[in-house]
Amino acid sequence: MSSALNSALGSGFNSAPTIGEYLIQRLSDHGVRHVFGVPGDFVLGFNKQLETSPLVEFVNTCDEQGAGFAADAYARLQGLGAVCVTYCVGGLKIANTTAQAYAEKSPVVVISGAPGIDERVKNPLLHHKVRDFDTQVKVFQQLTVASTVLDNPETAFQEIDRVIASALRYKQPVYIELPRDRVNLPGNPHYQFVALPEHSDANALQEALDEAIAMISAARQPVILAGVELHRFGLQESLVQLVEKTNIPVVATLLSKSVFSERHPGYLGIYAGAMGSEAVRHYVESSDCLIMLGAFMTDLDLGGFTAQLDPKRSIQVTSEKTSIHYHSYPDVHLRDLLDGLIAAPLQPRPLELPLRVTLTPDAFPIPNQPITLQRLFQRLNQFIDDSTIVIADPGDALFAGLDLLVHHRTEFLSPAYYASLGFAVPASLGTQLANPELRPLVLVGDGAFQMTGLELSTVVRYQLNPIVVVINNRGYATERPMQDGRFNDILNWHYSQLPMLLGTGQGFNVTTEEELEDALLASRINRDSFCLLDVQIDPSDTSIALQRLTRAMAVKVSTTPAPL
Amino acid sequence: MSSALNSALGSGFNSAPTIGEYLIQRLSDHGVRHVFGVPGDFVLGFNKQLETSPLVEFVNTCDEQGAGFAADAYARLQGLGAVCVTYCVGGLKIANTTAQAYAEKSPVVVISGAPGIDERVKNPLLHHKVRDFDTQVKVFQQLTVASTVLDNPETAFQEIDRVIASALRYKQPVYIELPRDRVNLPGNPHYQFVALPEHSDANALQEALDEAIAMISAARQPVILAGVELHRFGLQESLVQLVEKTNIPVVATLLSKSVFSERHPGYLGIYAGAMGSEAVRHYVESSDCLIMLGAFMTDLDLGGFTAQLDPKRSIQVTSEKTSIHYHSYPDVHLRDLLDGLIAAPLQPRPLELPLRVTLTPDAFPIPNQPITLQRLFQRLNQFIDDSTIVIADPGDALFAGLDLLVHHRTEFLSPAYYASLGFAVPASLGTQLANPELRPLVLVGDGAFQMTGLELSTVVRYQLNPIVVVINNRGYATERPMQDGRFNDILNWHYSQLPMLLGTGQGFNVTTEEELEDALLASRINRDSFCLLDVQIDPSDTSIALQRLTRAMAVKVSTTPAPL
Repeated sequence: MSSALNSALGSGFNSAPTIGEYLIQRLSDHGVRHVFGVPGDFVLGFNKQLETSPLVEFVNTCDEQGAGFAADAYARLQGLGAVCVTYCVGGLKIANTTAQAYAEKSPVVVISGAPGIDERVKNPLLHHKVRDFDTQVKVFQQLTVASTVLDNPETAFQEIDRVIASALRYKQPVYIELPRDRVNLPGNPHYQFVALPEHSDANALQEALDEAIAMISAARQPVILAGVELHRFGLQESLVQLVEKTNIPVVATLLSKSVFSERHPGYLGIYAGAMGSEAVRHYVESSDCLIMLGAFMTDLDLGGFTAQLDPKRSIQVTSEKTSIHYHSYPDVHLRDLLDGLIAAPLQPRPLELPLRVTLTPDAFPIPNQPITLQRLFQRLNQFIDDSTIVIADPGDALFAGLDLLVHHRTEFLSPAYYASLGFAVPASLGTQLANPELRPLVLVGDGAFQMTGLELSTVVRYQLNPIVVVINNRGYATERPMQDGRFNDILNWHYSQLPMLLGTGQGFNVTTEEELEDALLASRINRDSFCLLDVQIDPSDTSIALQRLTRAMAVKVSTTPAPL
Repeated sequence: MSSALNSALGSGFNSAPTIGEYLIQRLSDHGVRHVFGVPGDFVLGFNKQLETSPLVEFVNTCDEQGAGFAADAYARLQGLGAVCVTYCVGGLKIANTTAQAYAEKSPVVVISGAPGIDERVKNPLLHHKVRDFDTQVKVFQQLTVASTVLDNPETAFQEIDRVIASALRYKQPVYIELPRDRVNLPGNPHYQFVALPEHSDANALQEALDEAIAMISAARQPVILAGVELHRFGLQESLVQLVEKTNIPVVATLLSKSVFSERHPGYLGIYAGAMGSEAVRHYVESSDCLIMLGAFMTDLDLGGFTAQLDPKRSIQVTSEKTSIHYHSYPDVHLRDLLDGLIAAPLQPRPLELPLRVTLTPDAFPIPNQPITLQRLFQRLNQFIDDSTIVIADPGDALFAGLDLLVHHRTEFLSPAYYASLGFAVPASLGTQLANPELRPLVLVGDGAFQMTGLELSTVVRYQLNPIVVVINNRGYATERPMQDGRFNDILNWHYSQLPMLLGTGQGFNVTTEEELEDALLASRINRDSFCLLDVQIDPSDTSIALQRLTRAMAVKVSTTPAPL
């Protein structure tokens, strides 16, 4: 992290840096070592600056969509990510990935090249232009928490710092447009960055804390619902302190899965209304003090609104405010309230938890046994080791993946709210560049794989080695129980032949338990390339979680299709 | 086309149609037989209606981007196209393809499913939501010429007709959002559609015509620059009439290539400033009466602004207005002025044209001769027959493709202004479904192919048979002369192995002229599947047009990169 106060000249530059150089420096100051994107003529000058900079590496993907998803995953691991594209034909291709980063709080800096300010005089029809020169920035104003066009060298450095600060404050994407005739201009050398720390109102904090402590102390069966903001704001260690001090058990949500170590004795499981385990649901819904930390409860987190959570028995704390029962403290933030609870005189309780569901497989493999979804995930649960990060695409890859037990924290990644198909393969690229110690286990449906799976090409170029499990149920199987039709059918690719196209990698055809066993063992041994398992399951074979969700929503399905 | 006046009940419905049914009926009335898209839960109800309708077929692509490009190509051939996707995770993926349709005047109806209006109460966190429920419509307001959310059954039919009329009037995309709880509701059965014909102001038209006729009659060397609007507004036959009556020769632009038959004796060639042929450039720029019909002159059409076109010697007519010298007639439209010129007492002139450049290859193939870009295109020029439609991706596939002589009209398709890479392969899908008589010859760079080339999967499902020429120069070769770096490198796929992945198709490795010859002959014979030629040329081998452009822009390149 950068110091709170430094001038442009004090940041290691010998002379006034150019606008492009300053942007690279500031990304690097905040931990960005890789920028994902596709080059294009309106951004080539900045591409060259990125290439010659020792601070960051430019990683070019097959399509901009892949770069957007990779940067999102990178941001989730690294605390900040960046994607760099050309004007409109590049930028508008990542409208969707930026929307996902917005919805799920992932701080991605979107950098787009643009026509030079001097080229815009008289509004000529420059290629890549849509309606007006500001069409793209107007689009991104809808999808980001701050945006800027770096047209003025006098203010460019300040603008860069302003929008990056917003990304870090809100953990959401921001947009920086870089006209090509501004990249190499020097900015204001006398500009000084001043960080403005943000604290909760002290009186409001004290009142909220007093109330929360009294409620927790009087509670018979308190439980913590750990939300995704604990991860985004780097508060996971604080949560561990609170739990180890008080013995209050923890549940996570679909979106926050792995925010708290799933091997910790205080971990109960995933709460997801009627979609999740019945024991966890009962424990949470019968709690007389539900402490929701950094959770924003989506329809999927709430099991399609089957959840029964009573505000009267809840303390809800987010990065924006704290709510107790039905009243709110607008200026009391997650970090401060959590610190207050850790320091409070809360007594430890005896730890009496319901039995956790564990995925222990019976004998595996059973000879000549066709592979099923349930047996696949039972086996994968054993396969996961200390260096595994699970990346699940939305759909049954996510729903079935909920029961997998990851070993450390933040080692389960999935867009479990925005739910954009095609995230997982490009995310493996962002993940492994952010942390080369981790080997991604990618769980992806065949439909999603056909959207972005060819980013394995980029994986090959950067010599990474994810293990990709294509859950091949011949179409959009999650949709079939809601509304089936030919529109859910797709071509059955010979996925294991992909190494023939890319010139490297190892592919496996998996139809039985023995083939799965062999493929997993071979994948573990082969650390030199990606491995792809084409796991062919019956199109009607869906996860227990999806079946629960479908049952719970049966009435709704008959009139309008259920979520996802 | 629909009649000017009909009620919802008069359109073949036995009872008041539902909102979804009416939308399908109106698309069909305007010639839409295929709707491209990807299903998703917020649009499944409408997907089912599409599937059960005898009027249209739903074509599901691998990724929404492919659907967007296919619908754009379909609209260019058919006069209207449609793409149907789910909320945000689908819709925002086609922001870029919709922007291209906007920039290049292609009338695409974007239909997006959305959460039900009744589900939006209290603003819950429904999956796929970005910021607010209206985020997506706000984005598409920037990218379309009209938009609507069909929340009110009373006005839904009227709204559908209003936005489709805008698409047809302006030949630009429109946006229709269909909340999932509205699809099956009946609309207003008493609604009647009234078409409002639009004509030029009669007095202004007469004055403009008098002036234009006098200018043309007095001219020594008039020339018609035929723009893309002649195609979009269906005025190609009118242009032929005008030319055959007056013998005024015709040039086209990059964007309008093939708007006028390239085998017509009055056809001169492509005008593109310094990028095009010197003879054509000289003829046009020395003309004392340049009649620009339906042309909007982009930087690429103007050869990177190297064009020398003098308004003092020009008549410019578009769908919006007519300009002569430096003054404008705002209410005088292309169709009316063209009709007026055809009816006017203009005398035929002798047809004296400069020699046309033709791509006649010398002996082909020369044994053991490595294939070059120039020889590839010389051979392709002979390969084109009466049923060929050339679809060129931006980059050197387009620049080199300019000299190809297509046989009929509208048989060269390329996004030559917006220039979004990855158009060509999915466009072949839209093209061949719109007109099964045509066999697409797809020209695509390896960089662009890696973006969307896997839509050949959809091509396989619909049993189409394009011939795809991958111009494999190992990266973004168009960018290398401007600014080279590792960012222009991509993985060298074994493109000819693609049939192994997809289970069908025929692939060819082409490094020599003999291999090209064999591959082309085999492709002509194989009409049962797609054929893919991996034509491996030297990375430094660029087209003459690109070299001309680079030379003309040399000064600009040194400071800021040149276009594309």
